Amino acid sequence: MFFSFDGIDGVGKSTQIDLFCQWMRAQGRTVTQCRDPGSTPLGERIRDLLLTHDDSVSIHRRSEMLLYMAARAQLVEEIIRPALDRGEVVISDRYLLANIVYQGHAGQLPLEQVRTVGQVTIDGVAPDAVFVLDMSVGAADARMARELDRMEEQGAEFRRRLREGYLAEAAVDPAIHVIDASRSIDEVHESIADIAAKLVSSRE
Amino acid sequence: MFFSFDGIDGVGKSTQIDLFCQWMRAQGRTVTQCRDPGSTPLGERIRDLLLTHDDSVSIHRRSEMLLYMAARAQLVEEIIRPALDRGEVVISDRYLLANIVYQGHAGQLPLEQVRTVGQVTIDGVAPDAVFVLDMSVGAADARMARELDRMEEQGAEFRRRLREGYLAEAAVDPAIHVIDASRSIDEVHESIADIAAKLVSSRE
Repeated sequence: MFFSFDGIDGVGKSTQIDLFCQWMRAQGRTVTQCRDPGSTPLGERIRDLLLTHDDSVSIHRRSEMLLYMAARAQLVEEIIRPALDRGEVVISDRYLLANIVYQGHAGQLPLEQVRTVGQVTIDGVAPDAVFVLDMSVGAADARMARELDRMEEQGAEFRRRLREGYLAEAAVDPAIHVIDASRSIDEVHESIADIAAKLVSSRE
Repeated sequence: MFFSFDGIDGVGKSTQIDLFCQWMRAQGRTVTQCRDPGSTPLGERIRDLLLTHDDSVSIHRRSEMLLYMAARAQLVEEIIRPALDRGEVVISDRYLLANIVYQGHAGQLPLEQVRTVGQVTIDGVAPDAVFVLDMSVGAADARMARELDRMEEQGAEFRRRLREGYLAEAAVDPAIHVIDASRSIDEVHESIADIAAKLVSSRE
Protein backbone atom coordinates (compact mmCIF):
# COMPACT_ATOMS: atom_id res chain seq x y z
CA MET A 1 0.00 0.00 0.00
CA PHE A 2 1.05 3.56 -0.71
CA PHE A 3 0.53 6.49 1.70
CA SER A 4 1.57 10.09 1.27
CA PHE A 5 1.66 13.04 3.65
CA ASP A 6 1.09 16.59 2.56
CA GLY A 7 0.22 20.06 3.84
CA ILE A 8 1.73 23.50 4.30
CA ASP A 9 5.11 23.75 6.01
CA GLY A 10 5.13 23.96 9.77
CA VAL A 11 2.27 21.55 10.44
CA GLY A 12 4.47 18.74 11.81
CA LYS A 13 4.66 16.52 8.73
CA SER A 14 8.12 15.06 9.43
CA THR A 15 7.25 14.12 13.01
CA GLN A 16 4.05 12.40 11.91
CA ILE A 17 5.75 10.57 9.05
CA ASP A 18 8.35 9.18 11.46
CA LEU A 19 5.67 8.03 13.90
CA PHE A 20 3.62 6.49 11.10
CA CYS A 21 6.62 4.58 9.73
CA GLN A 22 7.42 3.26 13.22
CA TRP A 23 3.80 2.22 13.70
CA MET A 24 3.71 0.44 10.31
CA ARG A 25 6.95 -1.40 11.10
CA ALA A 26 5.51 -2.38 14.49
CA GLN A 27 2.70 -4.12 12.54
CA GLY A 28 5.40 -6.28 10.96
CA ARG A 29 5.38 -4.52 7.60
CA THR A 30 8.37 -3.61 5.48
CA VAL A 31 8.29 0.14 4.88
CA THR A 32 9.95 2.10 2.09
CA GLN A 33 10.12 5.76 3.07
CA CYS A 34 10.78 8.47 0.49
CA ARG A 35 10.40 12.18 -0.14
CA ASP A 36 9.10 13.91 -3.24
CA PRO A 37 11.04 15.61 -4.74
CA GLY A 38 14.07 13.52 -3.87
CA SER A 39 15.13 10.03 -2.76
CA THR A 40 16.80 9.22 -6.10
CA PRO A 41 20.11 10.72 -7.32
CA LEU A 42 18.26 12.55 -10.11
CA GLY A 43 15.47 13.65 -7.77
CA GLU A 44 17.92 15.09 -5.24
CA ARG A 45 19.64 17.09 -7.98
CA ILE A 46 16.29 18.44 -9.14
CA ARG A 47 15.39 19.20 -5.52
CA ASP A 48 18.56 21.29 -5.20
CA LEU A 49 17.65 23.21 -8.37
CA LEU A 50 14.13 23.86 -7.06
CA LEU A 51 14.78 24.75 -3.44
CA THR A 52 18.15 26.51 -3.44
CA HIS A 53 18.15 30.29 -3.45
CA ASP A 54 19.94 31.42 -6.61
CA ASP A 55 18.93 34.78 -8.02
CA SER A 56 20.79 34.06 -11.28
CA VAL A 57 18.41 31.17 -12.11
CA SER A 58 14.86 32.25 -12.79
CA ILE A 59 12.24 29.47 -12.75
CA HIS A 60 8.86 30.03 -14.40
CA ARG A 61 5.90 28.46 -12.61
CA ARG A 62 5.36 26.00 -15.50
CA SER A 63 9.03 24.94 -15.50
CA GLU A 64 8.88 24.52 -11.76
CA MET A 65 5.87 22.21 -12.11
CA LEU A 66 7.62 20.17 -14.83
CA LEU A 67 10.80 19.82 -12.74
CA TYR A 68 8.78 18.43 -9.82
CA MET A 69 7.14 16.04 -12.28
CA ALA A 70 10.52 14.88 -13.65
CA ALA A 71 11.72 14.12 -10.13
CA ARG A 72 8.47 12.29 -9.39
CA ALA A 73 8.59 10.12 -12.53
CA GLN A 74 12.05 8.97 -11.47
CA LEU A 75 10.85 8.32 -7.90
CA VAL A 76 7.97 6.22 -9.22
CA GLU A 77 10.13 4.05 -11.48
CA GLU A 78 13.24 3.76 -9.31
CA ILE A 79 11.64 3.39 -5.86
CA ILE A 80 7.85 3.40 -5.45
CA ARG A 81 6.71 0.96 -8.15
CA PRO A 82 9.44 -1.62 -7.36
CA ALA A 83 8.67 -1.40 -3.61
CA LEU A 84 4.93 -1.88 -4.22
CA ASP A 85 5.71 -4.80 -6.52
CA ARG A 86 7.68 -6.39 -3.65
CA GLY A 87 4.59 -6.02 -1.45
CA GLU A 88 6.05 -3.29 0.76
CA VAL A 89 4.31 -0.28 2.27
CA VAL A 90 5.48 3.00 0.70
CA ILE A 91 5.28 6.22 2.73
CA SER A 92 6.11 9.43 0.89
CA ASP A 93 6.70 12.93 2.18
CA ARG A 94 4.57 14.81 -0.41
CA TYR A 95 3.45 13.61 -3.86
CA LEU A 96 1.38 14.85 -6.82
CA LEU A 97 -1.14 16.68 -4.61
CA ALA A 98 1.62 19.13 -3.64
CA ASN A 99 1.99 20.23 -7.28
CA ILE A 100 -1.75 20.57 -7.75
CA VAL A 101 -1.89 22.83 -4.71
CA TYR A 102 1.43 24.75 -4.90
CA GLN A 103 1.61 25.39 -8.66
CA GLY A 104 -2.13 25.10 -9.37
CA HIS A 105 -4.31 26.52 -6.58
CA ALA A 106 -1.67 28.83 -5.09
CA GLY A 107 0.66 29.36 -8.08
CA GLN A 108 -2.22 29.93 -10.49
CA LEU A 109 -1.21 27.53 -13.24
CA PRO A 110 -4.40 26.11 -14.77
CA LEU A 111 -5.35 23.11 -12.58
CA GLU A 112 -6.17 21.09 -15.68
CA GLN A 113 -2.55 21.47 -16.92
CA VAL A 114 -1.12 20.23 -13.63
CA ARG A 115 -3.56 17.31 -13.45
CA THR A 116 -2.89 16.29 -17.07
CA VAL A 117 0.89 16.29 -16.70
CA GLY A 118 0.49 14.64 -13.30
CA GLN A 119 -1.37 11.65 -14.74
CA VAL A 120 1.35 11.12 -17.37
CA THR A 121 3.99 11.44 -14.65
CA ILE A 122 2.65 8.97 -12.09
CA ASP A 123 1.54 6.49 -14.78
CA GLY A 124 -1.08 4.86 -12.55
CA VAL A 125 0.90 4.92 -9.28
CA ALA A 126 -1.46 6.86 -6.97
CA PRO A 127 -1.55 6.77 -3.15
CA ASP A 128 -4.20 4.67 -1.42
CA ALA A 129 -4.48 7.48 1.12
CA VAL A 130 -3.12 11.03 1.31
CA PHE A 131 -2.96 12.54 4.80
CA VAL A 132 -3.20 16.33 4.66
CA LEU A 133 -2.06 17.79 7.98
CA ASP A 134 -4.09 20.91 8.47
CA MET A 135 -3.95 23.87 10.81
CA SER A 136 -4.39 27.62 10.47
CA VAL A 137 -1.63 29.43 8.56
CA GLY A 138 -0.90 31.56 11.62
CA ALA A 139 -0.40 28.50 13.83
CA ALA A 140 1.85 26.82 11.21
CA ASP A 141 3.90 30.01 10.81
CA ALA A 142 4.50 30.18 14.54
CA ARG A 143 6.03 26.67 14.43
CA MET A 144 8.51 27.43 11.62
CA ALA A 145 11.70 28.51 13.33
CA ARG A 146 14.24 27.64 10.63
CA GLU A 147 15.30 29.61 7.57
CA LEU A 148 12.80 29.46 4.70
CA ASP A 149 13.61 27.76 1.36
CA ARG A 150 12.64 29.18 -2.06
CA MET A 151 9.15 27.65 -2.02
CA GLU A 152 8.42 28.65 1.57
CA GLU A 153 9.25 32.32 1.24
CA GLN A 154 6.35 33.11 -1.05
CA GLY A 155 4.41 34.96 1.63
CA ALA A 156 1.32 34.78 3.78
CA GLU A 157 -1.21 35.22 0.96
CA PHE A 158 0.39 32.30 -0.94
CA ARG A 159 0.22 30.14 2.18
CA ARG A 160 -3.44 30.99 2.64
CA ARG A 161 -4.13 29.90 -0.94
CA LEU A 162 -2.21 26.68 -0.26
CA ARG A 163 -4.38 25.79 2.69
CA GLU A 164 -7.56 26.57 0.74
CA GLY A 165 -6.23 24.44 -2.14
CA TYR A 166 -5.65 21.43 0.07
CA LEU A 167 -9.15 21.72 1.53
CA ALA A 168 -10.68 22.14 -1.94
CA GLU A 169 -8.92 19.02 -3.27
CA ALA A 170 -9.93 17.03 -0.19
CA ALA A 171 -13.56 17.95 -0.86
CA VAL A 172 -13.49 16.22 -4.26
CA ASP A 173 -11.03 13.33 -3.75
CA PRO A 174 -12.04 10.58 -1.32
CA ALA A 175 -8.41 9.37 -1.03
CA ILE A 176 -7.48 12.66 0.72
CA HIS A 177 -7.96 12.74 4.50
CA VAL A 178 -7.73 16.11 6.25
CA ILE A 179 -6.17 15.67 9.69
CA ASP A 180 -6.53 18.37 12.33
CA ALA A 181 -2.85 18.93 13.11
CA SER A 182 -3.43 21.56 15.80
CA ARG A 183 -3.87 18.78 18.39
CA SER A 184 -1.12 16.99 20.32
CA ILE A 185 1.40 14.85 18.43
CA ASP A 186 -0.13 11.66 19.85
CA GLU A 187 -3.68 12.62 18.98
CA VAL A 188 -2.72 13.46 15.40
CA HIS A 189 -0.83 10.18 15.06
CA GLU A 190 -3.78 8.19 16.40
CA SER A 191 -6.15 9.76 13.86
CA ILE A 192 -3.81 8.80 11.04
CA ALA A 193 -3.17 5.29 12.33
CA ASP A 194 -6.92 4.68 12.73
CA ILE A 195 -7.59 5.57 9.09
CA ALA A 196 -4.65 3.48 7.88
CA ALA A 197 -5.66 0.48 10.00
CA LYS A 198 -9.17 0.52 8.56
CA LEU A 199 -7.83 0.85 5.04
CA VAL A 200 -5.34 -2.00 5.48
CA SER A 201 -7.94 -4.34 6.96
CA SER A 202 -10.42 -3.50 4.16
CA ARG A 203 -7.81 -4.68 1.64
CA GLU A 204 -7.03 -7.95 3.39
CA MET B 1 8.14 34.41 -36.87
CA PHE B 2 9.50 31.32 -35.23
CA PHE B 3 11.64 28.69 -37.01
CA SER B 4 13.20 25.56 -35.55
CA PHE B 5 15.75 23.12 -36.90
CA ASP B 6 15.77 19.44 -36.07
CA GLY B 7 17.10 16.07 -37.20
CA ILE B 8 19.49 13.35 -36.09
CA ASP B 9 23.01 14.37 -35.06
CA GLY B 10 25.59 14.67 -37.82
CA VAL B 11 23.32 16.13 -40.51
CA GLY B 12 24.84 19.63 -40.41
CA LYS B 13 22.27 21.38 -38.27
CA SER B 14 24.63 23.93 -36.65
CA THR B 15 26.09 25.00 -40.00
CA GLN B 16 22.65 25.50 -41.51
CA ILE B 17 21.35 27.39 -38.49
CA ASP B 18 24.29 29.80 -38.71
CA LEU B 19 23.72 30.37 -42.43
CA PHE B 20 19.98 30.83 -41.91
CA CYS B 21 20.52 33.39 -39.13
CA GLN B 22 22.97 35.33 -41.34
CA TRP B 23 20.49 35.23 -44.21
CA MET B 24 17.64 36.48 -41.99
CA ARG B 25 19.78 39.30 -40.64
CA ALA B 26 20.74 40.22 -44.23
CA GLN B 27 16.99 40.73 -44.84
CA GLY B 28 17.10 43.41 -42.16
CA ARG B 29 15.42 41.32 -39.46
CA THR B 30 16.35 41.12 -35.81
CA VAL B 31 17.08 37.50 -34.98
CA THR B 32 16.98 35.81 -31.57
CA GLN B 33 18.88 32.53 -31.74
CA CYS B 34 18.48 29.84 -29.10
CA ARG B 35 18.94 26.16 -28.42
CA ASP B 36 16.54 23.72 -26.79
CA PRO B 37 17.41 22.53 -24.18
CA GLY B 38 19.40 25.55 -23.08
CA SER B 39 19.77 29.30 -23.61
CA THR B 40 18.46 30.17 -20.12
CA PRO B 41 20.38 29.64 -16.85
CA LEU B 42 17.83 26.99 -15.80
CA GLY B 43 17.82 25.37 -19.26
CA GLU B 44 21.61 25.08 -19.32
CA ARG B 45 21.60 23.39 -15.91
CA ILE B 46 18.97 20.94 -17.10
CA ARG B 47 20.98 20.39 -20.30
CA ASP B 48 24.01 19.44 -18.17
CA LEU B 49 21.90 16.96 -16.20
CA LEU B 50 20.56 15.42 -19.42
CA LEU B 51 23.67 15.22 -21.56
CA THR B 52 26.52 14.62 -19.10
CA HIS B 53 27.66 11.06 -18.64
CA ASP B 54 27.15 10.16 -14.98
CA ASP B 55 26.58 6.51 -14.18
CA SER B 56 25.48 7.38 -10.64
CA VAL B 57 22.41 9.24 -11.95
CA SER B 58 19.88 7.01 -13.66
CA ILE B 59 17.24 8.83 -15.76
CA HIS B 60 14.03 7.06 -16.72
CA ARG B 61 12.68 7.85 -20.18
CA ARG B 62 9.65 9.63 -18.72
CA SER B 63 11.83 11.77 -16.41
CA GLU B 64 14.06 12.58 -19.35
CA MET B 65 11.06 13.78 -21.36
CA LEU B 66 9.82 15.91 -18.43
CA LEU B 67 13.27 17.48 -17.92
CA TYR B 68 13.38 18.54 -21.58
CA MET B 69 9.89 19.97 -21.14
CA ALA B 70 10.94 21.93 -18.02
CA ALA B 71 13.85 23.47 -19.93
CA ARG B 72 11.54 24.29 -22.85
CA ALA B 73 8.87 25.98 -20.71
CA GLN B 74 11.58 28.27 -19.34
CA LEU B 75 12.92 28.94 -22.86
CA VAL B 76 9.42 29.87 -24.04
CA GLU B 77 8.72 32.31 -21.20
CA GLU B 78 12.20 33.81 -20.78
CA ILE B 79 13.27 34.09 -24.44
CA ILE B 80 10.95 32.97 -27.25
CA ARG B 81 7.64 34.57 -26.30
CA PRO B 82 9.21 37.95 -25.38
CA ALA B 83 11.24 37.99 -28.65
CA LEU B 84 8.13 37.20 -30.73
CA ASP B 85 6.23 39.91 -28.85
CA ARG B 86 8.97 42.38 -29.85
CA GLY B 87 8.44 41.36 -33.50
CA GLU B 88 11.76 39.50 -33.82
CA VAL B 89 12.50 36.31 -35.73
CA VAL B 90 13.28 33.40 -33.40
CA ILE B 91 15.48 30.55 -34.65
CA SER B 92 15.84 27.54 -32.36
CA ASP B 93 18.19 24.58 -32.51
CA ARG B 94 15.61 21.82 -31.77
CA TYR B 95 12.19 22.18 -30.10
CA LEU B 96 9.22 20.00 -29.14
CA LEU B 97 9.53 17.76 -32.21
CA ALA B 98 12.82 16.43 -30.82
CA ASN B 99 11.01 15.05 -27.74
CA ILE B 100 8.26 13.51 -29.83
CA VAL B 101 10.87 11.71 -31.91
CA TYR B 102 13.61 10.93 -29.34
CA GLN B 103 11.45 9.90 -26.36
CA GLY B 104 8.35 8.92 -28.34
CA HIS B 105 9.13 7.25 -31.67
CA ALA B 106 12.64 6.08 -30.76
CA GLY B 107 12.44 5.94 -26.94
CA GLN B 108 9.05 4.22 -26.99
CA LEU B 109 7.16 6.44 -24.58
CA PRO B 110 3.52 6.59 -25.72
CA LEU B 111 3.37 9.40 -28.33
CA GLU B 112 0.14 10.67 -26.82
CA GLN B 113 1.91 11.27 -23.47
CA VAL B 114 4.69 13.30 -25.10
CA ARG B 115 2.23 15.32 -27.19
CA THR B 116 -0.04 16.04 -24.21
CA VAL B 117 2.79 17.25 -21.97
CA GLY B 118 4.24 19.12 -24.96
CA GLN B 119 1.09 21.17 -25.48
CA VAL B 120 1.04 22.18 -21.80
CA THR B 121 4.75 23.05 -22.02
CA ILE B 122 4.75 25.28 -25.11
CA ASP B 123 1.44 26.94 -24.14
CA GLY B 124 0.63 27.93 -27.74
CA VAL B 125 4.16 28.91 -28.84
CA ALA B 126 4.69 26.63 -31.87
CA PRO B 127 7.13 27.16 -34.76
CA ASP B 128 5.80 28.56 -38.06
CA ALA B 129 8.16 26.13 -39.79
CA VAL B 130 10.32 23.23 -38.61
CA PHE B 131 13.22 22.29 -40.89
CA VAL B 132 14.14 18.63 -40.49
CA LEU B 133 17.57 18.04 -42.00
CA ASP B 134 17.47 14.51 -43.36
CA MET B 135 20.05 12.06 -44.63
CA SER B 136 20.67 8.35 -44.21
CA VAL B 137 21.87 7.26 -40.76
CA GLY B 138 25.06 5.87 -42.28
CA ALA B 139 25.90 9.18 -43.96
CA ALA B 140 25.20 11.13 -40.74
CA ASP B 141 27.31 8.70 -38.68
CA ALA B 142 30.24 9.21 -41.03
CA ARG B 143 30.11 12.97 -40.35
CA MET B 144 30.19 12.67 -36.54
CA ALA B 145 33.82 12.85 -35.54
CA ARG B 146 33.51 14.15 -32.00
CA GLU B 147 32.83 12.23 -28.78
CA LEU B 148 29.18 11.22 -28.34
CA ASP B 149 26.99 12.63 -25.53
CA ARG B 150 24.54 10.57 -23.48
CA MET B 151 21.70 10.92 -26.00
CA GLU B 152 23.87 10.21 -29.02
CA GLU B 153 25.39 6.97 -27.78
CA GLN B 154 22.13 5.03 -27.91
CA GLY B 155 23.15 3.05 -30.97
CA ALA B 156 22.40 2.53 -34.61
CA GLU B 157 18.95 0.97 -34.18
CA PHE B 158 17.89 3.96 -32.04
CA ARG B 159 19.14 6.35 -34.73
CA ARG B 160 17.20 4.48 -37.41
CA ARG B 161 14.04 4.83 -35.33
CA LEU B 162 14.79 8.56 -34.95
CA ARG B 163 14.98 9.09 -38.67
CA GLU B 164 11.77 7.14 -39.24
CA GLY B 165 10.11 9.17 -36.49
CA TYR B 166 11.02 12.48 -38.10
CA LEU B 167 9.67 11.31 -41.46
CA ALA B 168 6.46 10.00 -39.85
CA GLU B 169 5.85 13.32 -38.08
CA ALA B 170 6.55 15.28 -41.28
CA ALA B 171 3.92 13.19 -43.06
CA VAL B 172 1.19 14.42 -40.72
CA ASP B 173 2.29 17.97 -39.82
CA PRO B 174 2.37 20.57 -42.62
CA ALA B 175 4.66 22.87 -40.57
CA ILE B 176 7.47 20.28 -40.84
CA HIS B 177 9.66 20.52 -43.95
CA VAL B 178 12.03 17.64 -44.68
CA ILE B 179 15.23 18.97 -46.25
CA ASP B 180 17.58 16.65 -48.13
CA ALA B 181 20.79 17.36 -46.20
CA SER B 182 22.98 15.04 -48.26
CA ARG B 183 23.53 17.86 -50.79
CA SER B 184 26.13 20.64 -50.61
CA ILE B 185 25.92 23.19 -47.79
CA ASP B 186 24.81 25.91 -50.22
CA GLU B 187 22.11 23.78 -51.84
CA VAL B 188 20.68 22.85 -48.46
CA HIS B 189 20.70 26.47 -47.34
CA GLU B 190 18.96 27.61 -50.53
CA SER B 191 16.16 25.09 -50.04
CA ILE B 192 15.60 26.34 -46.51
CA ALA B 193 15.79 30.02 -47.46
CA ASP B 194 13.29 29.48 -50.31
CA ILE B 195 10.72 27.98 -47.96
CA ALA B 196 11.28 30.71 -45.36
CA ALA B 197 11.03 33.50 -47.96
CA LYS B 198 7.69 32.19 -49.21
CA LEU B 199 6.39 31.85 -45.68
CA VAL B 200 7.51 35.34 -44.70
CA SER B 201 5.97 36.95 -47.80
CA SER B 202 2.70 35.03 -47.26
CA ARG B 203 2.42 36.62 -43.80
CA GLU B 204 3.05 40.18 -44.95
